Amino acid sequence: MYNPLFLPVVQEMLENNDTQAMAEFCNVLHPAVIAEVLETLESDQIWRILTTCSFQKQVEIFEYISLSHQTELVKVIDRESLSHLLEEMSPDDRVALISRMEPSYVSTLMPLIAQAERNDIRKMLSYPDDSAGSIMTTEYAWLSESVTVKEAIEQLRLQAPSRETIYYVYILDEGRRLQGMISLQELILANPDTLIKKHVKREVIAVRVDDDQEFVAHELAKYDFLAIPVVDNQNRLVGIVTYDDVIDIVQEEATEDAYRAAGVEPFEDHYLDVSLKTVLWKRGSWLFFFAAVALISGKFLHSYSSIYDQVTWTVFFLPLVMASGGNAGTQACTLVIRAMTLGEINPSKYWLLVRRELLMGALLGLWISLLGIASAIFIFKLSYQDSLVVFTTVFMVVYLGNIIGVLLPMAFKKLGMDPALMSNPMITAIIDVVGVLLYLGTIVLIATQVVV
Amino acid sequence: MYNPLFLPVVQEMLENNDTQAMAEFCNVLHPAVIAEVLETLESDQIWRILTTCSFQKQVEIFEYISLSHQTELVKVIDRESLSHLLEEMSPDDRVALISRMEPSYVSTLMPLIAQAERNDIRKMLSYPDDSAGSIMTTEYAWLSESVTVKEAIEQLRLQAPSRETIYYVYILDEGRRLQGMISLQELILANPDTLIKKHVKREVIAVRVDDDQEFVAHELAKYDFLAIPVVDNQNRLVGIVTYDDVIDIVQEEATEDAYRAAGVEPFEDHYLDVSLKTVLWKRGSWLFFFAAVALISGKFLHSYSSIYDQVTWTVFFLPLVMASGGNAGTQACTLVIRAMTLGEINPSKYWLLVRRELLMGALLGLWISLLGIASAIFIFKLSYQDSLVVFTTVFMVVYLGNIIGVLLPMAFKKLGMDPALMSNPMITAIIDVVGVLLYLGTIVLIATQVVV
Repeated sequence: MYNPLFLPVVQEMLENNDTQAMAEFCNVLHPAVIAEVLETLESDQIWRILTTCSFQKQVEIFEYISLSHQTELVKVIDRESLSHLLEEMSPDDRVALISRMEPSYVSTLMPLIAQAERNDIRKMLSYPDDSAGSIMTTEYAWLSESVTVKEAIEQLRLQAPSRETIYYVYILDEGRRLQGMISLQELILANPDTLIKKHVKREVIAVRVDDDQEFVAHELAKYDFLAIPVVDNQNRLVGIVTYDDVIDIVQEEATEDAYRAAGVEPFEDHYLDVSLKTVLWKRGSWLFFFAAVALISGKFLHSYSSIYDQVTWTVFFLPLVMASGGNAGTQACTLVIRAMTLGEINPSKYWLLVRRELLMGALLGLWISLLGIASAIFIFKLSYQDSLVVFTTVFMVVYLGNIIGVLLPMAFKKLGMDPALMSNPMITAIIDVVGVLLYLGTIVLIATQVVV
Repeated sequence: MYNPLFLPVVQEMLENNDTQAMAEFCNVLHPAVIAEVLETLESDQIWRILTTCSFQKQVEIFEYISLSHQTELVKVIDRESLSHLLEEMSPDDRVALISRMEPSYVSTLMPLIAQAERNDIRKMLSYPDDSAGSIMTTEYAWLSESVTVKEAIEQLRLQAPSRETIYYVYILDEGRRLQGMISLQELILANPDTLIKKHVKREVIAVRVDDDQEFVAHELAKYDFLAIPVVDNQNRLVGIVTYDDVIDIVQEEATEDAYRAAGVEPFEDHYLDVSLKTVLWKRGSWLFFFAAVALISGKFLHSYSSIYDQVTWTVFFLPLVMASGGNAGTQACTLVIRAMTLGEINPSKYWLLVRRELLMGALLGLWISLLGIASAIFIFKLSYQDSLVVFTTVFMVVYLGNIIGVLLPMAFKKLGMDPALMSNPMITAIIDVVGVLLYLGTIVLIATQVVV
């Protein structure tokens, strides 16, 4: 965790302009720790500290700084230094940063970047957002299968400094097509004088360059891979996605899902780094929509306003009716969406799920309607007929709320839409309308002393 | 993703009792894929297939089978085979399985397990649930620092078959205290004849055996480690947690958080594998609680039931008032809880956050109350004074809902309780009570034609 003790020390270094202490600070601690401390400073202060250490170290620390802070940092350095920095960064971090910069500024920057890196950037920028291609790194270790184990280790030694990992090595033919893979562990264990083709695993699980990042994460996690290869449609290896990126993706997707569940449009940065305007828009638009749906419930309630005076107990149960349906729906919807996200539910299980939820809804409905009928009888001493209104409505609204909560995300998925659009407040708003209608209908049909 | 094409083939093998085809099936595909297919079969069918291949392969596939299916599988084999299986499993998977078995059965099983593994199991079972100690593996690679690079690689070659990973190697002294670490990549790059103590990294970031798994995951992710060492309070290395376990933890915690947000108590297995009874309890208890809180709102609404007849438009705005406060609170609460989970908010930022949310709540309140006042004026042609009731209530309920949504999880955290107890329906239920009181109060104070 973040150690607040470093901050006063760093501020003292800055005041005294103690470049030697700054350089030591950068060299002794883990770059992730330094990045965390630096993020609490101003951009120019960060650069003052970073420039005291070697360029390689600068890049290493810079890559651990969060994307929103990186975006601020690159605004205050000249193009020359920036192009130099971009050249040295790892391809995935570099492209993530560039896609957040002004396109017009990027185009003035590109000619300053070395040819090889420029081509790499152009290619990676061409892949769709959140695809395997946009998150992979192009710095993978590879060999041709005609070398011996000893030669392979020699070659890896040369490749190591510029590769994201040398623990998984991919075997390519002359056309760069993926032929197999071997791990460094297998190479170490193999007889040095044998050809590596004897040890190579041929059945390589890979993802396509346009696969979604969530699928990539799912595949890597399923097989416990350290990295997963990314191929184009001619099976040519174009990059790899490593486990550390997958951990970030899983966190990112979990955050997005939590936001969506609460009716907040996801944003890219840490919450406190996002501008007030953006948050207002991402929250306000949904809030407005839910409020508009609430007015529909209000419209129905209002149409029958003569009821509340005739049978005043009906008002008492209104919050129970509205809350219970929405809450049961929220629960069901969350369980289904989460199970879909984790790949636990495939279409063959849909029917099983619906059958189970129908039973679950009935049991939960019974359970909550018991609370309703108990209050009706003991608090209001209602007649059996009037108590039946409370019982029936609460039962039905929980039952329907539950099954709506299951069916809506399934329907969205089936239609190719994101089931996560069914946020908790959305489900609640929809079921509130249903609940109000059910309640009014039941009152009119069953309750005594009601004349509409 | 799961390939449904395998299932008919497997079923045919079982019908024809084609053991040769079964063995081939187990040997050709990736164990994760086989495990996925097997999970759709009955326990005895799974064992019929597994026992056609080598014991080592059996264990490998078994470890990829989900914990709930593993628990079923071990019920149908004899103690002898089970103890043999447990001996061969990796320590973390083994302990996860054992902690799900009947304690009385485990104690009859333990004497059959070899001494070394038995001690390992006893020790790991003694660590608290969800602590680093309970999820780590004890099969790490280690060296003493007095060997040369060449000797080190030789020793790793011998250790490799029984180690979870040899890519990170830990340096221990005679007391097994953690002195440093070196990666296999660094060993490969180093001059074979130098002593490894020259290359070892001394500042090793480790977690304690009783640290929570969420913290372990956070640390590994922060430093992009492949594995993180776990030490006891004498700095002795007791195990490592690897990246693949961290990916599982992050997924597991995200699922728990999503469930809690929806007011569902988390459960350990896949949703469809959990018994109906368990789900009913984990959902029903919270639903009942929320329903009870809704009755409090109902009580207040009912106490003023003479109002709804005097000014019938008040009923129209009731759903808007109740929904908007709860929705704003749900959004705010989710944003805060998620930021806490990701470590983005530390206590030094609390005040900044609260200030920002006060402004945000006011702006969101204005925005939604505009919808309220517009309906008041255009739909009901209410007087300015009556419209002011709608405007004031909606503004205040969104404003208060928002700040309650921020403060409650922060207060829970401060009190050492889990902020995630503040689920979306809980926040909504609490704010509904506030909203109803505000609405009634405002009506009584401001609205014309009301006599209480």
